Amino acid sequence: MAMGFRESDVISALQKIFATDDSRVSVGIGDDAASVATSAQTLITSDMAVEDVHFKVEWSSAFDIGRKITAANVADIMAMGGQCDYLTAAVALTGNETLQWIENLARGMKHESDLAGAYIVGGDIARGPKVVISMTALGHVTTPILRSGARVGDGIFISSLPGWSAAGLELLTRQIAINSAFAEKALSEFSAPTIDYEVDFSGASAMCDLSDSLLIQAEQLAAASGVCLAMDQELLTKSPEFAELSALANQLDTDVFQWIYAGGEDHVLLATGLDLPGIRIGTVESGSGISGIESKVAPVSWSHFDENK
Amino acid sequence: MAMGFRESDVISALQKIFATDDSRVSVGIGDDAASVATSAQTLITSDMAVEDVHFKVEWSSAFDIGRKITAANVADIMAMGGQCDYLTAAVALTGNETLQWIENLARGMKHESDLAGAYIVGGDIARGPKVVISMTALGHVTTPILRSGARVGDGIFISSLPGWSAAGLELLTRQIAINSAFAEKALSEFSAPTIDYEVDFSGASAMCDLSDSLLIQAEQLAAASGVCLAMDQELLTKSPEFAELSALANQLDTDVFQWIYAGGEDHVLLATGLDLPGIRIGTVESGSGISGIESKVAPVSWSHFDENK
Repeated sequence: MAMGFRESDVISALQKIFATDDSRVSVGIGDDAASVATSAQTLITSDMAVEDVHFKVEWSSAFDIGRKITAANVADIMAMGGQCDYLTAAVALTGNETLQWIENLARGMKHESDLAGAYIVGGDIARGPKVVISMTALGHVTTPILRSGARVGDGIFISSLPGWSAAGLELLTRQIAINSAFAEKALSEFSAPTIDYEVDFSGASAMCDLSDSLLIQAEQLAAASGVCLAMDQELLTKSPEFAELSALANQLDTDVFQWIYAGGEDHVLLATGLDLPGIRIGTVESGSGISGIESKVAPVSWSHFDENK
Repeated sequence: MAMGFRESDVISALQKIFATDDSRVSVGIGDDAASVATSAQTLITSDMAVEDVHFKVEWSSAFDIGRKITAANVADIMAMGGQCDYLTAAVALTGNETLQWIENLARGMKHESDLAGAYIVGGDIARGPKVVISMTALGHVTTPILRSGARVGDGIFISSLPGWSAAGLELLTRQIAINSAFAEKALSEFSAPTIDYEVDFSGASAMCDLSDSLLIQAEQLAAASGVCLAMDQELLTKSPEFAELSALANQLDTDVFQWIYAGGEDHVLLATGLDLPGIRIGTVESGSGISGIESKVAPVSWSHFDENK
C-alpha cells in the first residue's frame, strides 16, 4: 500500500507542531542534530513503546499514545529529582498510518511535553512492521536523587495511588464495559496516565518511578539502598482514591492489591524521606527486601516481554 | 518460546559491557536516568534502525549491527561540527535472540562509541516483532555548523568516497559472490561503515551527513543555504577509491554513479568551505539545487520506507 505523502511532508508537519522560539533551543528539527542550552549536569533516559506490547491502536488514540510514551520518559527524569527540558522521538511507522494519525501522535507528545515544561527538539522516522516509538528525555538537576539513598527511619511515600492503568488494561482485555466514572478513569489512565508534574519530592533521600510496578521498583530501591521497605497496607487503604479503585476491583471480582502492587505504567513516583508530600505507605527499616504486603501478588518483571508466549 | 534469561540478566550483562569510571558519568546504567557532565551547548540526535529494513540478521553480525547504528548517530553529531560524548540505546528484541547475540550487539555499540570517544550511559529493552534499535547521541559544540551556511565560492568536499555500502547491499540482494578485496570492502562497509572520526571539518561553512545519499543531502544543503551546488564529476573520478569502486561496478554491470550519488549509509560528511580536507567535488555557485551530475540517478528519499511495497 502506497502512502499519500512523503517523508518530507511528515517532517514538515512535525516541524510545525514542535516549533518553538525558546532561546534555549538554538537549532531545532531539520538539521543533522538539535542544539540546546544545557547546564553542568544533564540527566538522560530513553524509553521505547511497541505496538501490541505497550499499546494497541485499537484501544488508544494516537494522541494518547503520544502522551503516554512522553509521560514515561519525563517521569524517569522526575524520578531523579530533575526537571525535563528536551525530548527526542524516533518512530517506526508501518506505512498504513494516515498523515492525520501521525500528526495526532505528535500533538499528544507536544501536549504532554508542554505540561512537563519540555521541548521536543528532534527525532527520526523509519519504516517497520509495527509502530515503535522510542523517546529520549534530557533534564537538568543539581544533585540527582538515586535509588540508593534510603535511610532507616525514613518514611515511604508514593505521589498518588497506582493501579488505575492496570485496572484499565483489565477492562480492555476482559472486554468488560462498566458505565461508571471509575471505569472511565481507569480506561483514561491506561491510555495516558495523568502525571502530577508539580509534585515536590526534592527532599527525598531515594526515589524511583513505578514504570514496572510498586512491587518490582520497591524491591529495586530496597536492594540499591541496602534496607527493608516495610509497607503498611493499612495506610494504602486510607489513601484518597483507594475506595474508588477497590469498588472497581470488586465489580471485576479482582484483588485490588494486584493492580496496586503489580500494575505498572501509572508512572507514580516512589520516594523515601521525611515529611514528603503524597501518600505515606510505610517506613524504611533495617534488613532487605519488602515486608508488610499481605496479598498474594504476582510479580510482573518484563511482563510485556513474556506475554503472549 | 521462552527465553533462557531474564531482563535482569540482560541489564546486568549490559552494565558490565558499558561500565565506565569516567568522572563525567556520575550515574550510569541502573537508575531511572543517567547523569552526565555537559557544557553550555549540547547537540542531540536520534536514529532508529529496524530489522529487515535497515539491517538483516542473516547478513550482518550483531556486533556489526551495533557498530552501524552507533556510527549513524555519531555521524550526525560530527555533521554539526560536534564531538559525541554520550549515547543511549533502546532496543526491541523478539525473544528469539540468545544472550550472546544481545551481548555482541552491545559490544559492537561499545566498540564504535570507543572509537568515537563516547560513552553509552543508558537505554531500554522492550519486546517487539522485529529487532528495533533506537539510539540517541549527545555531543558538545561551541558553534554548530548548519546546513544553511554555504557561501558562493566555497568548495564542496566529502570526507571520503560514498557508495561502498550501496555496493555491498547490491552484492547481497543480487546474491553475487565476487572473490576480491573490493567486494570484501563493500560487504564490510555495508555491515558497518568505517567512519573517520579524526577528519577535521571544523572550518566548514555548512555541513551534513550523507545518511540518505549525496543526491538527497546535497539538495537539502543547497536549499537550506539558498545556493547551487555545482558538482564536478571529473573530480569524483579522480578520487582515491574511485577506480576500485568503478571496477566493482563494472563487474556487476552497474553504474558506479548510482552507488555514489544515490547510495546511503556510508555516513560520509558533505561540507562546504575553503581548503577543507577530504575530496573536493565541486564549487558553490549562485542559484539553487545541484548541477553537474551527468549520470541518470534515481533519488532514494525514504527508500527504506518504500521498499518491498
